Amino acid sequence: MKSAGIVVEYNPFHNGHLHHILQTKRITGAEVLIAVMSGHFLQRGEPALLSKWARAKMALHSGVDLVVELPYYFATQKAETFAFGAIALLHELGVDSFCFGSESGDIKTFEKTANLLEEQNEQIQNEVQKWIKTGISYPKAQSLAMKNVLKDVSLLDTSKPNNILGLQYIKAKNRLSPDMKAYTIPRQGAGYHDKQPNKSIASATGIRHSIFHPNGVRLDGVKPYVPNATFTELKKYLSTFGVLHHWELYWPYLQYQLLSAKPKELQSIYEVEEGIEYRLIEAAHQSTSFQQFMESVKTKRYTWTRLQRMCVHILTHASKEQMAAESDYPSYIRVLGMTSKGREYLRNVKKTLQIPLIAKASAYRNLLTADIKATNIFAMGLPSNKRSALLNSDLLFSPVIIP
Amino acid sequence: MKSAGIVVEYNPFHNGHLHHILQTKRITGAEVLIAVMSGHFLQRGEPALLSKWARAKMALHSGVDLVVELPYYFATQKAETFAFGAIALLHELGVDSFCFGSESGDIKTFEKTANLLEEQNEQIQNEVQKWIKTGISYPKAQSLAMKNVLKDVSLLDTSKPNNILGLQYIKAKNRLSPDMKAYTIPRQGAGYHDKQPNKSIASATGIRHSIFHPNGVRLDGVKPYVPNATFTELKKYLSTFGVLHHWELYWPYLQYQLLSAKPKELQSIYEVEEGIEYRLIEAAHQSTSFQQFMESVKTKRYTWTRLQRMCVHILTHASKEQMAAESDYPSYIRVLGMTSKGREYLRNVKKTLQIPLIAKASAYRNLLTADIKATNIFAMGLPSNKRSALLNSDLLFSPVIIP
Repeated sequence: MKSAGIVVEYNPFHNGHLHHILQTKRITGAEVLIAVMSGHFLQRGEPALLSKWARAKMALHSGVDLVVELPYYFATQKAETFAFGAIALLHELGVDSFCFGSESGDIKTFEKTANLLEEQNEQIQNEVQKWIKTGISYPKAQSLAMKNVLKDVSLLDTSKPNNILGLQYIKAKNRLSPDMKAYTIPRQGAGYHDKQPNKSIASATGIRHSIFHPNGVRLDGVKPYVPNATFTELKKYLSTFGVLHHWELYWPYLQYQLLSAKPKELQSIYEVEEGIEYRLIEAAHQSTSFQQFMESVKTKRYTWTRLQRMCVHILTHASKEQMAAESDYPSYIRVLGMTSKGREYLRNVKKTLQIPLIAKASAYRNLLTADIKATNIFAMGLPSNKRSALLNSDLLFSPVIIP
Repeated sequence: MKSAGIVVEYNPFHNGHLHHILQTKRITGAEVLIAVMSGHFLQRGEPALLSKWARAKMALHSGVDLVVELPYYFATQKAETFAFGAIALLHELGVDSFCFGSESGDIKTFEKTANLLEEQNEQIQNEVQKWIKTGISYPKAQSLAMKNVLKDVSLLDTSKPNNILGLQYIKAKNRLSPDMKAYTIPRQGAGYHDKQPNKSIASATGIRHSIFHPNGVRLDGVKPYVPNATFTELKKYLSTFGVLHHWELYWPYLQYQLLSAKPKELQSIYEVEEGIEYRLIEAAHQSTSFQQFMESVKTKRYTWTRLQRMCVHILTHASKEQMAAESDYPSYIRVLGMTSKGREYLRNVKKTLQIPLIAKASAYRNLLTADIKATNIFAMGLPSNKRSALLNSDLLFSPVIIP
């Protein structure tokens, strides 16, 4: 079976994602489509709107055949580690090709840039260090260093988030799986300067913005931009649990943690560096919401995203030690959901897999520590009498199966 | 100035407490009355109904001249440590006498029992160890051991909570301050078998029970049992903050902490012993309220109170190391409130004090770590937009002063 992979967060699934799926199938000619999806906390350091189970269901209803989870160790990381983990899983699953959305939309540019980066890596790293010292953020320093060293205006615009990710996909592919074929399609919708914008496409950011209205959670504005299956799932989740997840639901726990933990405990948390724990503690005392907290800790050096990821790690007690030990290479493939075609694919590749394939998690609880904890902390965003529906779901749930 | 001391929690202040104050003044002939009061978490391992500032005010309005805080290191402990810390503070403040309420009401019995206990301490400790091995709780084992060894039926009934505390006061006094004169008065009201019960006296437990009605917080039933100043303070607190504090407000934080901390982190917490952390973690996954949680962790060996205290320490991250280092002897006298008479008394004894007297706390933040943290965690029980009224109040507030 010819297979293709995609890397997704689906927060939530929308028409742009459907476009990505259809285009991927068309371009690659794949019969089976495999998505590596973040779990309950996402690359930008945010809780997902809905549980990973609900998001896996959305994906399976829209053309994905197999959803595997990008482990916490990779999902809540900067582009390089995130991309590496995702490509490693696609590599382990033996996909023939993969396809990502980007602002550029031109795979040649990605490949050329990746090659140049490889050749001039040392020089770029030196340049990055110089820029970092001026007090700017790492992504900005990297983008400036590349511009200065590569000096080729026709190269990739690495100030764009999906170009950055795409470049990391290509670098990971070159390293892990040179035979895997890479494709990119231009991103549709908000933020992409299309001459004839597709009216039914909005970005996930835009959709979340319209959901979290100052007067409460609203789904009406979302309907034109998502497939019916997504809309149904959103409505069902909201009526079952009374909430869609967002940072403010976790603010009391983050504030509690920052008020109760000793600075030394915070220093042991992944990404907490350079004494920022004191700044975080101080802000936790002064702030009445996550938004206010973030605004008061934000500096030129620390991007919003980096700070949010740090807060996720504080929330889940993810230690430097544990993250360092586990983010070298994924040590398992966790199946969140599949169609019968996805199941058949798994049956075929099963024997060649180098790392354990996990459908029922209870036998692998030690491998999944961080994902289980992330799920349980994610569940704390639900009202107390609803939490049990998600608590320990990693150990209790079987993969979502769609015929 | 002739002075007397009392040890109190005032959760909340009620007519029985007023009786205690008036009797203490009458019996001791004291001109100035000093109360050592628990802060935000109490001896039974519960948050106080109202802040320590509000409770200090209640005390000053009803005849107390000086309120000093029993530090967290002593206030959240078993009777022996609690009593020791409180008597040590009264000793440091040079009070001439102290008076406590008890089920017995006969000071001779306390003194006789304390002496016998001292003489036969070794034998009793051996007996306690034997009983502990049968799987019963420490307080029960101690009570049985004393009965078995002392064999004198006219002795103190040490199954009664206020007799236990009283005995520890006497032991601490004998050790620290043999010249301090001790008095006891029989407790009034609920639980005390008075032939002509005073209709306006109810226990603090009964009062709290009537406040936390299943349909919401109710103050009406409380009015006959508390002085007007207390009732006004309760009403004011409730209308300002929307809540009176109780364990369920802290359940989400406790649950979060038990779901996110590693067993090793929990093992470092004071009172967490014998692998009970696994039992707590398991119950945190299964429970939807603090009540349900407690019911499911309760065993014959662990009393409700001991478990609640353990939960308070988990909530405030109080480590074994820190608690062991600080509970030998109080290292400061923290003034929460005073009348002008209390102020005058302090002025007189100031020069003879052996440990620092703290009115403004900001200069002593290192000494007060645990109290500051307890206050901040206590504040987390308030709605998020009200927390700032209590957060860091230890550093910001001056003592309550009443003319």
